[in-house]
Amino acid sequence: MAAMASFIIKTPIQSNNPFPKTHRINFPIVSPVSYSSYKKKPIPKSIRISCGLIEPDGGKLVELVVPESQRDVKKREAMSLPKIKLSRIDLEWVHVLSEGWASPLTGFMRESEFLQTLHFNSLRLGDGSIVNMSLPIVLDIDDSQKNRISGSTSVALIDSSDNPIAILNNIEIYKHNKEERIARTWGTTAPGLPYVEEAITGAGDWLIGGDLEVIQPIKYNDGLDKYRLSPSELRAEFTKRNADAVFAFQLRNPVHNGHALLMTDTRRRLLEMGYKNPVLLLHPLGGFTKADDVPLSWRMKQHEKVLEDGVLDPENTVVSIFPSPMHYAGPTEVQWHAKARINAGADFYIVGRDPAGMSHPVEKRDLYDADHGKKVLSMAPGLERLNILPFKVAAYDKTKQKMEFFDPSRPQDFLFISGTKMRALAKNKENPPDGFMCPGGWEVLVEYYDSLAANDSGRVPEPIPA
Amino acid sequence: MAAMASFIIKTPIQSNNPFPKTHRINFPIVSPVSYSSYKKKPIPKSIRISCGLIEPDGGKLVELVVPESQRDVKKREAMSLPKIKLSRIDLEWVHVLSEGWASPLTGFMRESEFLQTLHFNSLRLGDGSIVNMSLPIVLDIDDSQKNRISGSTSVALIDSSDNPIAILNNIEIYKHNKEERIARTWGTTAPGLPYVEEAITGAGDWLIGGDLEVIQPIKYNDGLDKYRLSPSELRAEFTKRNADAVFAFQLRNPVHNGHALLMTDTRRRLLEMGYKNPVLLLHPLGGFTKADDVPLSWRMKQHEKVLEDGVLDPENTVVSIFPSPMHYAGPTEVQWHAKARINAGADFYIVGRDPAGMSHPVEKRDLYDADHGKKVLSMAPGLERLNILPFKVAAYDKTKQKMEFFDPSRPQDFLFISGTKMRALAKNKENPPDGFMCPGGWEVLVEYYDSLAANDSGRVPEPIPA
Repeated sequence: MAAMASFIIKTPIQSNNPFPKTHRINFPIVSPVSYSSYKKKPIPKSIRISCGLIEPDGGKLVELVVPESQRDVKKREAMSLPKIKLSRIDLEWVHVLSEGWASPLTGFMRESEFLQTLHFNSLRLGDGSIVNMSLPIVLDIDDSQKNRISGSTSVALIDSSDNPIAILNNIEIYKHNKEERIARTWGTTAPGLPYVEEAITGAGDWLIGGDLEVIQPIKYNDGLDKYRLSPSELRAEFTKRNADAVFAFQLRNPVHNGHALLMTDTRRRLLEMGYKNPVLLLHPLGGFTKADDVPLSWRMKQHEKVLEDGVLDPENTVVSIFPSPMHYAGPTEVQWHAKARINAGADFYIVGRDPAGMSHPVEKRDLYDADHGKKVLSMAPGLERLNILPFKVAAYDKTKQKMEFFDPSRPQDFLFISGTKMRALAKNKENPPDGFMCPGGWEVLVEYYDSLAANDSGRVPEPIPA
Repeated sequence: MAAMASFIIKTPIQSNNPFPKTHRINFPIVSPVSYSSYKKKPIPKSIRISCGLIEPDGGKLVELVVPESQRDVKKREAMSLPKIKLSRIDLEWVHVLSEGWASPLTGFMRESEFLQTLHFNSLRLGDGSIVNMSLPIVLDIDDSQKNRISGSTSVALIDSSDNPIAILNNIEIYKHNKEERIARTWGTTAPGLPYVEEAITGAGDWLIGGDLEVIQPIKYNDGLDKYRLSPSELRAEFTKRNADAVFAFQLRNPVHNGHALLMTDTRRRLLEMGYKNPVLLLHPLGGFTKADDVPLSWRMKQHEKVLEDGVLDPENTVVSIFPSPMHYAGPTEVQWHAKARINAGADFYIVGRDPAGMSHPVEKRDLYDADHGKKVLSMAPGLERLNILPFKVAAYDKTKQKMEFFDPSRPQDFLFISGTKMRALAKNKENPPDGFMCPGGWEVLVEYYDSLAANDSGRVPEPIPA
């Protein structure tokens, strides 16, 4: 990370918010408190910006994989310790932690971190500074596992085939109040939240925190590992490309031309602002997703086509997989999505309408207010350094036969194609209007729904860390 | 507030935590993040302490009652505006806001403050500083009220007899997602939470925020207004008494000799530390409480007896009423209780076991982990300036026939008298062991339960702001 050194330079940027006219979130500004909530501190003309990339949270990227020379020793050590078997989602979190996406966390949360996450969505560090941390990254154990650990200060984490994955040191065991965790993370306790059903409802009544030593890099052997760049590898790639701005786009859906329009438009604006080489991090989420999302392998095929078809320019785009599981926790989760990308070197973050949102599992409404994600993100402690770029709404312009930013002066010209509508078209092998998605990308989607109908299982299996 | 000026002096205090040995919350300190969570920044020998009282949040105490000369004008103005009728709890919040307990809030929360409260338990001010704010202080309206307001930028707030109480200016109306508010505030959505049932379940689907102008000081005319000192009046009182430390004790129960022991012991320790005149703020909560709590009027009688009987020294004790309603929201609410006392001039806050806690309304357990209140308080953003004093457990020492701090080396000598046990004794006109409570105070309790049995209504009426 030699490129992380920084110095004082003159810069064309006058404000933390690069798009003051069109992209700024505007609220009535009436009281000192309301005002302050949205006001970023004014930046003097001479500001401190990094000549390399944005610093990771805590100042140093955490990396928890032990050196290759220690691997055998650590494996033997692990075999002698009490063992905890990891679920697929647990392994995804070990992956996330091991590469420093959650810097400065050095392992599964202890109680102090868990409580700060639930109550404040942030952690206070030893120097008094604050980093954002909105999702609990925790490991549960049940009574019998707790008893087996008894007086040990370290435990081994093993996969479903009993291979040692990591050692958790200086452990702390504390109560897992699932109801409170769910209520404070999702703002509801309604049954049917996908992550809750998958990972919390049946979980143990205890959490175990500690410092991780990961025995070797986490791999999935599914043909997609080449896309799983760590924050350190991404930083090296951005440095190699001489990026002077990195804008991240988090997604868990196929890319259509509206997304592409937004991304190319963002680059254009960054160039206008004086950046010479803004690079896009197209960053699909690779961990647990709910059953009706398009699986990672198909999304990656679709994204490959989008680049092949020239919708996005490979010269200034890095496609990589973000290994985190998905919580569908709206305004709480979008902070995690943004924070993790700081650690990967992104200083601009594109936030959509209702990020990480979903339908309420019981009531007939969206779980979150569609605007709360970007509002909460803009006010979140520890994310002041990140430039938040609210998503402009794109829709199919029937007069131009392509995706365009929605023009409220002529709403009749625009067609909104929802995810549900898109899936219905692909399932029925109907084509969307020309210009909605590149033909190669669309074929991948049709093929995916064909495969679903063929095996009738409802879903292809997801990759498991191997 | 002339006494608020501060200067640099030498001080005997070496640390923010005055009771490093006996009172410090000790946790395993193993990772940089855990460590930092509990570590206060070291204070150099020459520190900046106020020669008067701790500064209110935001630097200036908010006071929202209009000058007497404007009262008639404001009343007439209010009569011309769309009107919102206030519930008893709404009025209590107007009282709280009007006197600056919630400084720097200048009225009911707008959406930006509401979201920051729910997600971060804190507000960021214009200068980038953070103040604590853990409970939403909001005013709900329903669809028809919202329609009546239509394009107006101000509304009048009126009491149940249609008297104008206040004007809310520069209003902002936004959605009231009750489920999310409840889940994020209480960490549960179980039915039966007292404040929720009283003030949220039947509330409107919108919230209205804005800046308050309160037409005249809020009074209850229940004989207790003399105890309702505002933060400004309390600060004047502490200054008059030359207090160099103010330690606040929040309570909503009768005072027994265990409480008294704790308070006198705290004063002794503060004197040992070098303070010359520590003053106790004995600060019973005066707003909404649940049906089985002892009503304010009886508690005040009981507190009067405790001072008359010499259990606490009136010379260095200020008894006053804290006008806030009670949420019973545990670790979230205790932050509000502490923050409001900073605004009243307290720089030390005594925190009990399970503060603001209660039984889970549905399950057979306490709603909150008994230790989370003090842990969350010690980590809460915006409360770094406050010295947190964890409660030492007192119990009845049978060998000494008085309340003493519990000694774990001889547990058999101690009798724990719970609130339930105390109420059962008073109801049955049985006496607690000698030395549990001063006789005058105990008589008040017996008299209260007598009055309950007599009118059989289950509860005497609570005071209503008049």
